[in-house]
Amino acid sequence: MAIPVEAFFLTGGTAGTLQSRIRAMVTEGILAGRFRPGQKMPSSRGLAEHLGVSRITVTLAYADLVSSDYLTARGRSGYFVSDNAPRAPEFPAAERPAEEVDYGALSARRYTRAMAGVDRPEDWEKFPYPFIYGQTDPTLFDHQNWRACALRALGRRDFASLTSDFYERDDPLLIEQILRVILPRRGIAARGDEVLLTLGAQNALWLAATVLLGPGRQAVVENPCYPGLRRILQTSGAGVASVDVDEAGLPPRLPPADVVFTTASHQCPTNATMPLDRRLQLLDAASREDFVVVEDDYEFEMSFLKPVSPALKSLDKGGRVIYAGSFSKSIFPGMRLGYLVGPPAFIAEARALRSMVLKHPPGHIQRTVAYFLAEGHYDALINRMRNAFRRRRQVMDDAISEHGLTVAGQGGFGGSSFWMAAPEGVDTEPLAQVLRADGVLIEPGRGFFDPAREERRFYRLAYSSIAPARIPDGIARIARALARSG
Amino acid sequence: MAIPVEAFFLTGGTAGTLQSRIRAMVTEGILAGRFRPGQKMPSSRGLAEHLGVSRITVTLAYADLVSSDYLTARGRSGYFVSDNAPRAPEFPAAERPAEEVDYGALSARRYTRAMAGVDRPEDWEKFPYPFIYGQTDPTLFDHQNWRACALRALGRRDFASLTSDFYERDDPLLIEQILRVILPRRGIAARGDEVLLTLGAQNALWLAATVLLGPGRQAVVENPCYPGLRRILQTSGAGVASVDVDEAGLPPRLPPADVVFTTASHQCPTNATMPLDRRLQLLDAASREDFVVVEDDYEFEMSFLKPVSPALKSLDKGGRVIYAGSFSKSIFPGMRLGYLVGPPAFIAEARALRSMVLKHPPGHIQRTVAYFLAEGHYDALINRMRNAFRRRRQVMDDAISEHGLTVAGQGGFGGSSFWMAAPEGVDTEPLAQVLRADGVLIEPGRGFFDPAREERRFYRLAYSSIAPARIPDGIARIARALARSG
Repeated sequence: MAIPVEAFFLTGGTAGTLQSRIRAMVTEGILAGRFRPGQKMPSSRGLAEHLGVSRITVTLAYADLVSSDYLTARGRSGYFVSDNAPRAPEFPAAERPAEEVDYGALSARRYTRAMAGVDRPEDWEKFPYPFIYGQTDPTLFDHQNWRACALRALGRRDFASLTSDFYERDDPLLIEQILRVILPRRGIAARGDEVLLTLGAQNALWLAATVLLGPGRQAVVENPCYPGLRRILQTSGAGVASVDVDEAGLPPRLPPADVVFTTASHQCPTNATMPLDRRLQLLDAASREDFVVVEDDYEFEMSFLKPVSPALKSLDKGGRVIYAGSFSKSIFPGMRLGYLVGPPAFIAEARALRSMVLKHPPGHIQRTVAYFLAEGHYDALINRMRNAFRRRRQVMDDAISEHGLTVAGQGGFGGSSFWMAAPEGVDTEPLAQVLRADGVLIEPGRGFFDPAREERRFYRLAYSSIAPARIPDGIARIARALARSG
Repeated sequence: MAIPVEAFFLTGGTAGTLQSRIRAMVTEGILAGRFRPGQKMPSSRGLAEHLGVSRITVTLAYADLVSSDYLTARGRSGYFVSDNAPRAPEFPAAERPAEEVDYGALSARRYTRAMAGVDRPEDWEKFPYPFIYGQTDPTLFDHQNWRACALRALGRRDFASLTSDFYERDDPLLIEQILRVILPRRGIAARGDEVLLTLGAQNALWLAATVLLGPGRQAVVENPCYPGLRRILQTSGAGVASVDVDEAGLPPRLPPADVVFTTASHQCPTNATMPLDRRLQLLDAASREDFVVVEDDYEFEMSFLKPVSPALKSLDKGGRVIYAGSFSKSIFPGMRLGYLVGPPAFIAEARALRSMVLKHPPGHIQRTVAYFLAEGHYDALINRMRNAFRRRRQVMDDAISEHGLTVAGQGGFGGSSFWMAAPEGVDTEPLAQVLRADGVLIEPGRGFFDPAREERRFYRLAYSSIAPARIPDGIARIARALARSG
């Protein structure tokens, strides 16, 4: 590939003759690794015009660079970066500009600090026993129909509507599918101005928290809970109270709050389902004590053991429940598409905030998902996943019993994971390191807990990405590691 | 399409017999518009099992609904929502749940208020004279190759890397293209840990402002400036000082600041280019007075009149410049992909913040753009756009001269718009309304200015989306409207 002429500038402050300055630009680019062996240089005429210097100056600089092996001349084809050109050092730390600004101090490292403890190997697919949560199993995904829908959404007819900047409304086809197909399954009747598309569930929770919270406000969150939510609340400026869940999820007596975050249908990570009476109590309390409930309804599609319980939102008579849903668990996580459902005044605020932060989710993805839903591929995929997860769960159950591991929470509806307890005194973080060396990936539980009430003996075992045939051996390895660490 | 059985719930609190409650569920769904004429109902057996009631109860409820015309029975095919079923009212405002919560008060309407004044018709493409900024011209876009790249990125080989959740790194192929192809054109030598992909330029600016600003900090911004940036700063909690630009952009003497936002190469909206000596003064001041500069380098690709000036970032010796770039202007805006370049400590903070807010831009889009760049389609597209814009600009220039309109800023490098001044006393917002009725879309200038120093006589005319043959007539219509309003 040719190096564009725009890659070259003569800055005012540099000393030396024009010829030596041109030479320095080229060598600097090669040494910095910007220009690679084999790349074509601009013509001497082109570079001369671009820099506003005479052509002979460039020609002389090029000749000099050829003699020093930075460039080679290939007759009428022009000049190329030489294959023998001095190489960029592999670790060119010394070449970084001096950093005069302490960015860590400027931002108080608030965001990197909040991310500490996130640790999932990028190459998790290379591990034979990945009991890892929330990733796609490529053997279950309906690649062919996804591709067909994406292709249809790439068609010329859809192009105009998908390439424009639009923030006032989302893709009407997808909104219709969510209103007609998805939400009714959760017992939710909503209208167009009550739904906002988001960049995945994380973005939905962040938008809700940012609209509803801030300094002087008070949030209540489940303990343990989804670590991504805890991070959001930690940097929101609001006070945060963690309330321990029991086998029925969030208990009904809560400390004073402006906003309560709950995973009522499928507590994360314990898998508990909040019973109907407790749900009604929570909504009564919300009305009596004037707080708002944010319901993260992740993974409801994976209820394969019993019919799914209705969403909290379906029982909401006062517009007090903000509902967050996502296609990340049911289609695939890297797609980044979720949604919020709430009263129009809330949705308007969240839409304006979304617009300020990222404008809108990419149009092409919205339309692809709309087709995937409308053509029924989504239902077929969910069905296939349910059947596979039901079988895997049985294999997990058998292996866990056989090896005498302790289940701390499994829920009664399905899902894709078990919440496990190691024996007293075991720290599951070093355990996870030991297991990783043995090809087994587990998720240590510490990150789910309020740091002030840290628990280290829990861990999560997901079965959404592991081949069923691998499960027994993987569980056996965990049991052996636990026996050694006891 | 069949209505899923999960769409039906019996909640605890409802009065009446089981049969009447089932009937109410169905009629409510039909009246609310969730169940549409022609949709198939669950079988009586399936619904009975799902609800845990006897089958005869469901059968009796269905029979009742047939007699009241909500449902029709089609022999052995089952029950369907009747074509004559009572219709959902068109504006069913009365059916909304009571809203007990004043969400506007809860959030102080901070986000919707900041969005006030944004007004671009969604159907701008239907207007014959759309002098509208930043939208894609479908006649210039390389649809075929974009589609080919998207298709390649949808291939099974890329699937694993594109569907996973990953936040530590972005698509390595795209990062390499940005480091090797895009940034060198701006004179910028960067490494992988100095680049972060964002969800478009808006997201890049928001991430930078959020990491660098907050209560107690001070921002300086150009006046006029990009309204999307002003909105971000307005809600950042920081103090904001607007500094009037002149014909060379942001002047060198600035009030005290922690962060200065500038569009040095191509001032938005005046098109002014900051000369080199002023750039060096700005960087000297940043070092002396210890502030950071955020450079929004939008639209640099559209320098077709003169070689583009180097980015401020290319002159940055102290790691004081944060650079924001985007593919929205050069590929298409709805794609939502941009990037930040800055010192590693800053990028780490911005990456952690991005992860908290939205995890990461969708993998499929990252890979598609990487292919589009690597295969040279991007360069070809830019080249085609430059040539088209050069011609259109000439037509604009001629028509503007012929009709005696006043150009307030056009810059010397190219771009895609003219910044215009109406005669003293003209308010361009009512002018825009009058012109819209005449098929002409212009952008009134008020939104670009600091509200405390409101200017109403400016407007922007972009030529990126209008057919060249329409330009003379469009300008003539503007001139006539101005003559009438004078």
